[in-house]
Amino acid sequence: MSLPFTVLILLIFSSYFISLAHSKFARLAISPKTLIKNTPDGSTQKVDESGLQMFYFNQTLDHFTFRPESYMTFQQRYAINSTHWGGAKANAPILAFLGEETSLDSDLSGIGFLRDNGPRLKALLVYIEHRYYGKTMPFGSAEETLKNASTLGYLNAAQALADYAAILLHVKEKYSTKHSPIIVIGGSYGGMLAAWFRLKYPHIALGALASSAPLLYFEDTLPKFGYYYIVTKVFKETSERCYNTIRKSWKEIDRVAAKPNGLLILSKKFKTCAPLNGSFKIKDFLDSVYAESVQYNRGPSYWVTKVCNAINTNTYPPNSKHDLLDQIFAGVVALIGNRTCYDTNMFAQPTNNNIAWRWQSCSEIVMPVGYDKQDTMFPTTPFNMTSYISGCESYYGVPPRQHWITTYFGIQDVKLILQKFGSNIIFSNGLSDPYSVGGILEDISDTIVAITTKNGSHCQDIGLKSKDDPEWLVMQREKEIKILDSWISTYQKDLRDLNISN
Amino acid sequence: MSLPFTVLILLIFSSYFISLAHSKFARLAISPKTLIKNTPDGSTQKVDESGLQMFYFNQTLDHFTFRPESYMTFQQRYAINSTHWGGAKANAPILAFLGEETSLDSDLSGIGFLRDNGPRLKALLVYIEHRYYGKTMPFGSAEETLKNASTLGYLNAAQALADYAAILLHVKEKYSTKHSPIIVIGGSYGGMLAAWFRLKYPHIALGALASSAPLLYFEDTLPKFGYYYIVTKVFKETSERCYNTIRKSWKEIDRVAAKPNGLLILSKKFKTCAPLNGSFKIKDFLDSVYAESVQYNRGPSYWVTKVCNAINTNTYPPNSKHDLLDQIFAGVVALIGNRTCYDTNMFAQPTNNNIAWRWQSCSEIVMPVGYDKQDTMFPTTPFNMTSYISGCESYYGVPPRQHWITTYFGIQDVKLILQKFGSNIIFSNGLSDPYSVGGILEDISDTIVAITTKNGSHCQDIGLKSKDDPEWLVMQREKEIKILDSWISTYQKDLRDLNISN
Repeated sequence: MSLPFTVLILLIFSSYFISLAHSKFARLAISPKTLIKNTPDGSTQKVDESGLQMFYFNQTLDHFTFRPESYMTFQQRYAINSTHWGGAKANAPILAFLGEETSLDSDLSGIGFLRDNGPRLKALLVYIEHRYYGKTMPFGSAEETLKNASTLGYLNAAQALADYAAILLHVKEKYSTKHSPIIVIGGSYGGMLAAWFRLKYPHIALGALASSAPLLYFEDTLPKFGYYYIVTKVFKETSERCYNTIRKSWKEIDRVAAKPNGLLILSKKFKTCAPLNGSFKIKDFLDSVYAESVQYNRGPSYWVTKVCNAINTNTYPPNSKHDLLDQIFAGVVALIGNRTCYDTNMFAQPTNNNIAWRWQSCSEIVMPVGYDKQDTMFPTTPFNMTSYISGCESYYGVPPRQHWITTYFGIQDVKLILQKFGSNIIFSNGLSDPYSVGGILEDISDTIVAITTKNGSHCQDIGLKSKDDPEWLVMQREKEIKILDSWISTYQKDLRDLNISN
Repeated sequence: MSLPFTVLILLIFSSYFISLAHSKFARLAISPKTLIKNTPDGSTQKVDESGLQMFYFNQTLDHFTFRPESYMTFQQRYAINSTHWGGAKANAPILAFLGEETSLDSDLSGIGFLRDNGPRLKALLVYIEHRYYGKTMPFGSAEETLKNASTLGYLNAAQALADYAAILLHVKEKYSTKHSPIIVIGGSYGGMLAAWFRLKYPHIALGALASSAPLLYFEDTLPKFGYYYIVTKVFKETSERCYNTIRKSWKEIDRVAAKPNGLLILSKKFKTCAPLNGSFKIKDFLDSVYAESVQYNRGPSYWVTKVCNAINTNTYPPNSKHDLLDQIFAGVVALIGNRTCYDTNMFAQPTNNNIAWRWQSCSEIVMPVGYDKQDTMFPTTPFNMTSYISGCESYYGVPPRQHWITTYFGIQDVKLILQKFGSNIIFSNGLSDPYSVGGILEDISDTIVAITTKNGSHCQDIGLKSKDDPEWLVMQREKEIKILDSWISTYQKDLRDLNISN
């Protein structure tokens, strides 16, 4: 964020940050320190009373080359709930959640869309863990799997999509249903995967719900405003005063840091668990506090309001014992809670998931998130592709292929291309989600549609249903389900018209 | 074909045969015995007076993994003719020929569709050589490149399509044209590539002309009739007597072979260059003679007529010095010409192209071509997947992934899937081409259409124009061009409507 970064630290910071900002459950993520071992293929385990079962699929390591090494297999975890399924004879649908950069457990606990709507659609529910995340470690242990570019090299979106294709065909075979339509669902990076899956495997997925998928956040399709534009906008709309306090705080941090013992003063001010070795540490930490507040700003917590209330309450001079940085710190406490000390690295832990995601963002998912414009509450520091690339290259020994995503998935001129190609995709975005700047926000055709909500945050629509959900969220989900339902009915009619049966 | 095969020989025979039957210029192919060396990137060479220039592109070895080895590059050959191009400002189109399992030189000499129609469409013409064929040898020499599964492992359709994507984006950049629509064209296996390219890379290709592409000739989409059904049908329609002679000949070969010195008699009868070590040798050879005659049965030669005339003229007893096998031999001479001796392996030479294609048909392009039905003029010998797989596995050390093509490209239920997904593909087939049994012969939607001609042979429409072309062929090509032209006009109108400029 600020000045004294080495390239590598910037890289690690930003990729970690993207990782966390990306993950819908980042703040709840557990860091598994122990090595993860795969259990044998086909083993099943009752997970809960709802009928959810866990499986492991014997997955091909490399779908796209046929070298002897490519034939290695690994155990990929997935879960099925068949309780409400209408069966093969009825060509009842399959809702498939395509995992993103987190463990299946997180998705199972946090994704509500499938279980909330499965019974109504009489759907078979499938959840698949993304390769290299959770318990799906192609080289056995996480340590071995995440070691270097030679092992990580098999971790990318195209391979992940081919994994999903193989598992979904396997599931259809297992349930002897040749023509049950599959709807794929995903959020954030997983939302990109869902949309891409429909585009690349239309013979496997009938349609896709891509929630909060920043498909246009790549070098060739750079959005006009960046991630931090929305972060700022939401803070400003919540409280202009709060926004102004934050905006002023960066210079104040620099001013204090420049004093003799300045870093020590800052350490004490922010109760850091370890002494600060640079003011950037506290700035990056605060950046994450604000970004996370906005990205996951939803009921019952509404983090931005909480953070701003705390900042605004601890009023600034004159006539107060609190200074500006105390206000800022109060915002931190409002988000994270009272702690004896605060770990400035807490948003950038080297968890297995973060290590895997860093590789992805250093190889193909190069999203140029920077502090681009003067109209954010952050000091302007545009994303620097050159230093990003050289940072990744020096870390992994191989450079990112930063044009590969747009070469393979190609979302440039999206309206021009997709208005006459493809069908059955919903792009849903909350416009208060910072990643919505890279989302598809307008209808492309009759069947490739955008659903936006003014107040929605990141992936809110596919989260757990709650009695306290605002009306607009209930309506949004209802609209989504109705569209999915119409795809399914049309397809079932097509099957009859074409005289196709299982 | 017949009995005394070992599995391995069957494998080599059938894959070689498919290779030859596949290649539009197989009978003209030269076997390059010397090692092929790549020339440096970007080197250009004037090929002829027409303005065709040769280039080499620095291509990525493995697009789908990011291991350090994946970053290796090789020199991929392609050719451009810009003489008639209307330019970037006019968004004038690009016609791109996607190479199949042969050298670029063969395509440049045999493919007429681009040069014959380029001026009319004001198109930039691009021809790309397929990786592992011709001079495009990823590991330098052909010997090294074609050595074993470790080097051949990078040879497959998905990688080839990604190569084409990279080169076409490069060409657009080179000619500073962001929005010139690209039409991809290919024949046979290359026709499959063209159709698949439009489906996987709609952001790069506006449309595809897939000539004689047997997309449905895979295990999961097995056609009702096989390749040899058409071979037989064309012979029968040309001459019932000829057909009957051939049908009877197999038993006669077996009868003679069973005599003392039987193989020697056959060797003399068919003037084989080497003594026969089994009657299957001569049967395989004859199989190829008939298959090639039908597949490339077009003007000015009309091979089937020539072969049948010869067979019918050398009449069979009584009162003739010619016996049945003399008749058959006369057919061979009619196709191949007068030679001092005949090499029964001539259709199965281990040329570099054939070696590369054998790998492809032993890894993913597993087309179950057999003598399936009683209604062919060949002895029934259905394709045996089990022995095919084990043959490939023992030869290469890795088994074919025989379901991969339908997993990745998925052409099952083609009407159901593509009637509401995708656009702008022409599937053209001559119904007298044996591979048409695996082609798409009916319109799928308004913009995914089938063009068939009763008398057309393999890839005839994209071959060289000639004054002697029959009326139906002239009309077919005209129809194809009109459709391409309408795609281009619609796209150029869309550009204006969306206010997109270069």
